[in-house]
Amino acid sequence: MTSVTMTRDAAVGLDVGATTTKGAIVTRAGEVLLRVEVPTDRHAGTKSIIAVIEELIENAGDVDAQPVAVGVGAAGFIDAATGSVTFSPNLEYGDPEVAEAVRSRSGLPVVVDNDANAAAWGERRFGTAQGTDYLAYITLGTGIGSGFVVDGRLIRGYTGAGAELGHMVVDPDGPPCPCGLRGCLEQFASGTAIARIARAALKEGDHRSSILSFAGSIENVTALDVAKAAREYDEVARDVLAKAGRMLGVGLSNVANIFDPEVIVLGGGAVRAGEAFLGAARDQLARMTEAQRRRPMRLDVTSLAQDAGIIGAATLALDEVVQTERTQKRGLRER
Amino acid sequence: MTSVTMTRDAAVGLDVGATTTKGAIVTRAGEVLLRVEVPTDRHAGTKSIIAVIEELIENAGDVDAQPVAVGVGAAGFIDAATGSVTFSPNLEYGDPEVAEAVRSRSGLPVVVDNDANAAAWGERRFGTAQGTDYLAYITLGTGIGSGFVVDGRLIRGYTGAGAELGHMVVDPDGPPCPCGLRGCLEQFASGTAIARIARAALKEGDHRSSILSFAGSIENVTALDVAKAAREYDEVARDVLAKAGRMLGVGLSNVANIFDPEVIVLGGGAVRAGEAFLGAARDQLARMTEAQRRRPMRLDVTSLAQDAGIIGAATLALDEVVQTERTQKRGLRER
Repeated sequence: MTSVTMTRDAAVGLDVGATTTKGAIVTRAGEVLLRVEVPTDRHAGTKSIIAVIEELIENAGDVDAQPVAVGVGAAGFIDAATGSVTFSPNLEYGDPEVAEAVRSRSGLPVVVDNDANAAAWGERRFGTAQGTDYLAYITLGTGIGSGFVVDGRLIRGYTGAGAELGHMVVDPDGPPCPCGLRGCLEQFASGTAIARIARAALKEGDHRSSILSFAGSIENVTALDVAKAAREYDEVARDVLAKAGRMLGVGLSNVANIFDPEVIVLGGGAVRAGEAFLGAARDQLARMTEAQRRRPMRLDVTSLAQDAGIIGAATLALDEVVQTERTQKRGLRER
Repeated sequence: MTSVTMTRDAAVGLDVGATTTKGAIVTRAGEVLLRVEVPTDRHAGTKSIIAVIEELIENAGDVDAQPVAVGVGAAGFIDAATGSVTFSPNLEYGDPEVAEAVRSRSGLPVVVDNDANAAAWGERRFGTAQGTDYLAYITLGTGIGSGFVVDGRLIRGYTGAGAELGHMVVDPDGPPCPCGLRGCLEQFASGTAIARIARAALKEGDHRSSILSFAGSIENVTALDVAKAAREYDEVARDVLAKAGRMLGVGLSNVANIFDPEVIVLGGGAVRAGEAFLGAARDQLARMTEAQRRRPMRLDVTSLAQDAGIIGAATLALDEVVQTERTQKRGLRER
């Protein structure tokens, strides 16, 4: 007796972050079939990306999948037209022509884009913002990343250095940012900022805060410690998160004025800081929207969570392949 | 003997501002053949728009032009998909369905868009930014307007309420804005802001400033008076313009981080404030670009000046008609 199994069309999706590289086989329906997760090799970006992709392709048969494309979402400035990395603060790529390198090894069509762009696409196709053509996705982690979909298309700059909402200056006299500017949004509302503001508050003031019982010492305070303390109604923690949330709200109002999206989706680790943070952001945005008599906007938290990047990268690649095939067919007909 | 004259395909272009409505017959080559300029009727927006359009169409024969489309650029939030005005702070439209009203009267295809979007399109097609697919156009006048072209397409929001760079908050503790927010860019770098900051400086300080000899009294100071005084090396005027220019530079850096355009074009009356203002903006942007190690960006002043809006609106309409015809032809072939 022979068993016949349908193999499913799928794509490889990669999410290359500063610390972790996640990869998966993802179906056309956005289903994750197989996962790989490795520490990111900071000194061999492209090589380590290729290794993960090859492992996934080799094992795709085990889950009855046939990868037909590869999508990579990577931190940094990406020229999506060529699939090359033009600037990456935390990773050395060796060969910045990532798409070309992956294509020549895998023989598959390859799409490379910014990691937040990929995640935005994932949210649009299978997540919280499913079906919308006007989406702002903002990821709150160590820094603040963003991806914007306008009229169904991802916003990419002339050189792929756009959609850097984290480095929108919201206070020209604000704290310095590693990017070289002062008062970037990411200095007020990222996980790193929450931790920094909490440390400053603890140094100046109330040492009885339960933040310290979670962190051990002021130097070790993380955003997670602040979030835990806030859940126990710690005043210092709640003040810090309210302040960060209000500045995030200001940033969201700017997004509304610039992009007028249908939905804003928040992702990244810092969304786990909970209502003390997100509630303050939502209230601030609502106040500003009302003051301007703007249409209220849907503000939501990612439903794909840590998978937004891999699902988005894979789907972006599949959508691109379909688009290319359509264009080629049309070209043939028009000749 | 008969004289045979070729009639040229052209479009009617309108630029509907809060005080003046300008209209013109514009050729496919961006040439302005015939102009009309009337005070904007604040209480009869749509009617007054139609009157100007009809006058232009009636007289088009005199300049051997045959209008094949109508483009309207209007202040406010515009739903470009339907050509209707969704919000306008300074104008009552009566009938907000501007495109439909004009179409039924003229029998021509009609495009209605935000005035700054129209001007951005003009700059891209025939002005300073000719040929680029990645453009930010910023108009500095009473307020600050903007239009963004990304990948060859104008950025419009879900409801047409996007591209409002003037209401990007750059200092949450800044001065109140008529829009309802505090610290909007337009409160620091518009013509109105320049005049306000100058009045405050004069009230507090040096009454010998030559701004007063141009304005007569502190209450009457306009941005133009400040610009004139700055040209005579008046210290107060130069300080005010430098301060406004630096904040404009911060806004431009935000534009760079969000859109990564190839070219930024500045338009509107306040560009006539000259180097004391624009030089400060350029220097601030250059400093911020360098601090971030970003690619330097072309920053230029409009070459179409007051015609950007009419040329842009007309060209947007012509381009849209061509696009629609192409799509229809393709549709027929694909059937």
